[in-house]
Amino acid sequence: MRASTAQAGRQALNSYKTLLRQSLPQHRFYSSAPLRPSKSTLAPLSRSAFRHQAPSPCSAARGNLSLRQIRFASTDKPGKSGSRVLRGLYRSLAWLGIFVVVSGGLVVAFFIYDATTYHEEPESVDIPISELALNPRRGGPKNLPIAEHMVDDDESDEKKGQKHKPKLVVLGTGWGSIALLKNLNPDEYHVTIVSPSNYFLFTPMLPSATVGTLELRSLVEPVRRIIKNVGGHFLRAEAVDIEFSEKLIEVASVDTEGNRQHFYLPYDKLVVGVGSITNPHGVKGLEHCHFLKDITDARLIRNRINKNLEKACLPTTPDEERKRLLSFVISGGGPTGVEFAAELYDMLNEDLCRFYPRILRNEISVHVIQSRTHILNTYDEALSKYAEARFAHDQVNVMTNSRVQEVKEDRIIFSQKTDKGIETKEIPMGFCLWSTGVSQTPFSQTLAAKLSNQNNRHALETDTHLRLAGTPLGDVYAIGDCSTVQNNVSDHIMTFLRTLAWEKGKEPQEMQMSFSDWRLVARKVKHRFPQAADHLKRLDKLFQEYDKDQSGTLDYGELSELLKQIDSKLTSLPATAQRAHQQGLYLARKLNKLAQAREGLMRNEIDAGDLDDAVYKPFEYRHMGSLAYIGNAAIFDFNGLNFGGGLLAVYLWRSVYFAQSVSLRTRILLAMDWSKRALFGRDLVSY
Amino acid sequence: MRASTAQAGRQALNSYKTLLRQSLPQHRFYSSAPLRPSKSTLAPLSRSAFRHQAPSPCSAARGNLSLRQIRFASTDKPGKSGSRVLRGLYRSLAWLGIFVVVSGGLVVAFFIYDATTYHEEPESVDIPISELALNPRRGGPKNLPIAEHMVDDDESDEKKGQKHKPKLVVLGTGWGSIALLKNLNPDEYHVTIVSPSNYFLFTPMLPSATVGTLELRSLVEPVRRIIKNVGGHFLRAEAVDIEFSEKLIEVASVDTEGNRQHFYLPYDKLVVGVGSITNPHGVKGLEHCHFLKDITDARLIRNRINKNLEKACLPTTPDEERKRLLSFVISGGGPTGVEFAAELYDMLNEDLCRFYPRILRNEISVHVIQSRTHILNTYDEALSKYAEARFAHDQVNVMTNSRVQEVKEDRIIFSQKTDKGIETKEIPMGFCLWSTGVSQTPFSQTLAAKLSNQNNRHALETDTHLRLAGTPLGDVYAIGDCSTVQNNVSDHIMTFLRTLAWEKGKEPQEMQMSFSDWRLVARKVKHRFPQAADHLKRLDKLFQEYDKDQSGTLDYGELSELLKQIDSKLTSLPATAQRAHQQGLYLARKLNKLAQAREGLMRNEIDAGDLDDAVYKPFEYRHMGSLAYIGNAAIFDFNGLNFGGGLLAVYLWRSVYFAQSVSLRTRILLAMDWSKRALFGRDLVSY
Repeated sequence: MRASTAQAGRQALNSYKTLLRQSLPQHRFYSSAPLRPSKSTLAPLSRSAFRHQAPSPCSAARGNLSLRQIRFASTDKPGKSGSRVLRGLYRSLAWLGIFVVVSGGLVVAFFIYDATTYHEEPESVDIPISELALNPRRGGPKNLPIAEHMVDDDESDEKKGQKHKPKLVVLGTGWGSIALLKNLNPDEYHVTIVSPSNYFLFTPMLPSATVGTLELRSLVEPVRRIIKNVGGHFLRAEAVDIEFSEKLIEVASVDTEGNRQHFYLPYDKLVVGVGSITNPHGVKGLEHCHFLKDITDARLIRNRINKNLEKACLPTTPDEERKRLLSFVISGGGPTGVEFAAELYDMLNEDLCRFYPRILRNEISVHVIQSRTHILNTYDEALSKYAEARFAHDQVNVMTNSRVQEVKEDRIIFSQKTDKGIETKEIPMGFCLWSTGVSQTPFSQTLAAKLSNQNNRHALETDTHLRLAGTPLGDVYAIGDCSTVQNNVSDHIMTFLRTLAWEKGKEPQEMQMSFSDWRLVARKVKHRFPQAADHLKRLDKLFQEYDKDQSGTLDYGELSELLKQIDSKLTSLPATAQRAHQQGLYLARKLNKLAQAREGLMRNEIDAGDLDDAVYKPFEYRHMGSLAYIGNAAIFDFNGLNFGGGLLAVYLWRSVYFAQSVSLRTRILLAMDWSKRALFGRDLVSY
Repeated sequence: MRASTAQAGRQALNSYKTLLRQSLPQHRFYSSAPLRPSKSTLAPLSRSAFRHQAPSPCSAARGNLSLRQIRFASTDKPGKSGSRVLRGLYRSLAWLGIFVVVSGGLVVAFFIYDATTYHEEPESVDIPISELALNPRRGGPKNLPIAEHMVDDDESDEKKGQKHKPKLVVLGTGWGSIALLKNLNPDEYHVTIVSPSNYFLFTPMLPSATVGTLELRSLVEPVRRIIKNVGGHFLRAEAVDIEFSEKLIEVASVDTEGNRQHFYLPYDKLVVGVGSITNPHGVKGLEHCHFLKDITDARLIRNRINKNLEKACLPTTPDEERKRLLSFVISGGGPTGVEFAAELYDMLNEDLCRFYPRILRNEISVHVIQSRTHILNTYDEALSKYAEARFAHDQVNVMTNSRVQEVKEDRIIFSQKTDKGIETKEIPMGFCLWSTGVSQTPFSQTLAAKLSNQNNRHALETDTHLRLAGTPLGDVYAIGDCSTVQNNVSDHIMTFLRTLAWEKGKEPQEMQMSFSDWRLVARKVKHRFPQAADHLKRLDKLFQEYDKDQSGTLDYGELSELLKQIDSKLTSLPATAQRAHQQGLYLARKLNKLAQAREGLMRNEIDAGDLDDAVYKPFEYRHMGSLAYIGNAAIFDFNGLNFGGGLLAVYLWRSVYFAQSVSLRTRILLAMDWSKRALFGRDLVSY
């Protein structure tokens, strides 16, 4: 197929060249004649080319000279004005022609490829299928069906090979799960993914989808595409509980009539990556708000904005009501809230004026309510201020130090801390986005209540190997927003110090620690709690600072003070896509190593002990930086390299996400969407 | 901007050439050296080129010979094997390089263009707005607000100029309305469009959107984009009634909280293009069916298919239930039903097998229930049979002569007429599409009940000038699916004949009509009822056929028989996009002519009489042919030129719709979608 296309292209090219040669004055083309001369064209060409040279035939004795003369004779020929322009024109045409031919060839090639993608014959062959997959046995504490076999376990040799591998079950299809699936070695595990949504969502660009800068489908990748790599199985269902002792997950599926069916799914290794839900902060009236966690949310927001705009155009809408409809309130000044405000502003500023009555633009207001002193408070303060200045320029009203008290159908009531004390205010609103942090899903709460070592109200606690605390070692992992890595550093170190004191035969309280002791301790801390490393860089400085009595040693009191200080600085890891991605990647690598080590361990009959620690290092989070879009401008916070800027920064912002995008497919779709916006603007259709 | 881009491109090209020259063996490049030599490159190039010629310097006395020798010296140089291949490689590289540079230039140019599409400064200027637009006066039979002025009537000089033009109101945004809006002269009318949906939907390709071959947004064009051309106003609202005597439309808008607000919209000319709804045919249980009229329907179908597939993959789904879930039933064998079945089959055949357990493919069944003897019964019979053969090959089960009796949650009950009589059958089903023709919207029913001359249960009757029967002449038009052109040809002709007999002083019953009389009558019929023309082509044959007593004349009885026959053949015009489009186009032209004639008529104080007939001919439907997609094949019925075929026909089918598509925007989106399908398949995500 390819050969024939190339040949066709070449033929087209040749015939085009011949055409050009025949149609244009011949003497201009002698020096771009083809390398391999064809008799029909060469003879007249060279004859006409050398006609100019006739007056001095002998000067051609030195070849290079003759060629030069030929050239100049043609170039500077007197009496032919404008030949330069003409030649330029011809050459441009030739280039254009070449471009058109090459492009045309590519298009033809694409059509030929396209034609091969249609299947004529219906494929229908007998598929072997085990009886247990069709009629699973019942069992477990609730006597539910146990899905030990899948319907496609026997359909191919590849699948048959996996059938008896350890069962790895992944709950959720977010950043963590997808990073895990994409980096897992195929054929080491029998992989099953359980999730109520059958796609991975590229969350960082979700705000762009709310106003049509990007299309919804450009941000999602079907899970079944992703699991093809590891030959995994996907079950569209929801995990509701886990029986840790019997290694069974209770899963509920909802059928098309809305009935729930429960069954058990057995696992050997389980990864919990179920994410989080929006934090309501105990505020009343959130049913009047929109959220932005999922693709459906984006669609609903898009429709709602559109409905408000259309309603505001009706001649019977009173002016007061119009202002209310066009008052957009964003509660929460984190990245999601800020980026949504920015995208909304862009849409209103760039697209609204072109198609809607202009009065709308005048009556629109965008408000951001932020509880902290700055928006984007996890970023460098200079960047927060840059973003605030940008918003001020864009007439986006930022209210800091403010807390929402209640959301009513048509207005939002909030308290603002000012110099005069706390004031209660209200804004009429036609649309409210609630984006104020995350909290646990009901499933996570169920797990936390069931396990002994879970003390964090906000997330499932894991150790530094990402193993869910309180579960049998090496069975269950938790990654992403639903989890947090335990970081009670000082407790651990105190235990360690007590052991050290015991070895030296002293009471811990009486122990004096020299600088070399301290260095040793710090090294162990760094190994065990990688995220503490940043705070243990200048050991000498820390030692001096906390050695208050200048004794050259730290006593127990001084050391406790130092460790508490470090502990307080170690906030829990941020609930970001970045962290989830790194955890998924880490877990994939560890699971690969565990699979490779499996045979050796079995041979040596090792089946206890801290295998995770034996095969791989603890998880270490590396903050790669943050970035945010703030309306025709973007800000970057790359570990100290902070900058913000206009359009070039926006292109950079896009490039970063373009590169991180999950597949070639989504990348092409993103590029298409951006082009579409440039060519046609955002589309203003709601359905 | 353009100049600088071109310059940058040229520079890049030049530097690329220089690079190539420097990096490749120099003697190969003497003949493609630039026309305008730069000293730095020319000298060494020509020297090396002519080095080969050194043994016979005098043969250069005749220029053409020397050049030939130079070429051959290089080409056939002995001792250098494989040089041809190498040269080919170099040339390919050069072409590739040129292509890359030109493409790169285009990309850069696009980015520069893109950068100009972002607006930095918020635009906010004072907009004049009339008091009446903000506080409309109340009036009319129900004392509702009357929207005489729009909020954007005064915002620009262009809009101000239209403010006092005759008010043209268009109800609906379907094929008819859009054709009208796209062809109306700007500045002749004050145009207002009223519709509950703010987009035009390209209905013929809607089946493709149900399985993800096309994206939903590629089929819609925002109305506000379309009306920009005529400076129109769009109100997202629903017409509920018309007060013909006061020229007021009662319009209801639904606010974001779901409350309905009614108001009056005044008109001078009104076009009713509100379309139709699906015909329930009195069948029970349609709440278990999906429909395919709107973009939301397509989204819901897509989600439902996906849910069924996912449910069928669950290990706890019994095999019987799996078969039910995968049984897709289409009720109605018209174009919509057939194309949906075809698209569904394509998706199942091409995409399902790649990502879902293969057992699904085996257990899937697609059924088409058709009440007539063939599917696609409006097409040529050969094409219907071709489509049926195609479906048989694709294992799509077509059941003709069958009528659905009832739709239950999990099965469909229908009666089939066979040789043995009528049998009642049932099929278990997991999905049912109901696409069995159209019926009137509630709004059309309201109008029909209100008007005296409306006798058609299925549509609003208009005369051949598309004026709604029973309304004041020239006020109200109806186009598209909601309307039908009255075609009681024989009644009209009988009246005409009576007049003719009267003139001749005879009783109509006694009149004998010669062939020349008949030809005269036929010509008048053709003029008045263009759609009858097809049936009046072979006048001599008709005359002979109905002149039963071979008298050479038709008596009254014979003539009545002939006319009745023609009348019965004249079914009402098909409810297709094609008819609506032609009607919209026709009306736009007439309204343009009426506007142009307005001044003259006013000067001559003519304000009564059949103005429509005076300025423009009656509406004439020209059937351009039908086409349908039938699953990797397509059929065409172009007025006698009937053919069907495989992939090439599919490309032709696409080309036709591509050409008919409403805007450049949708065309580019269609092309993108088709490419996407070829590259990545249909996406299988539901939300």
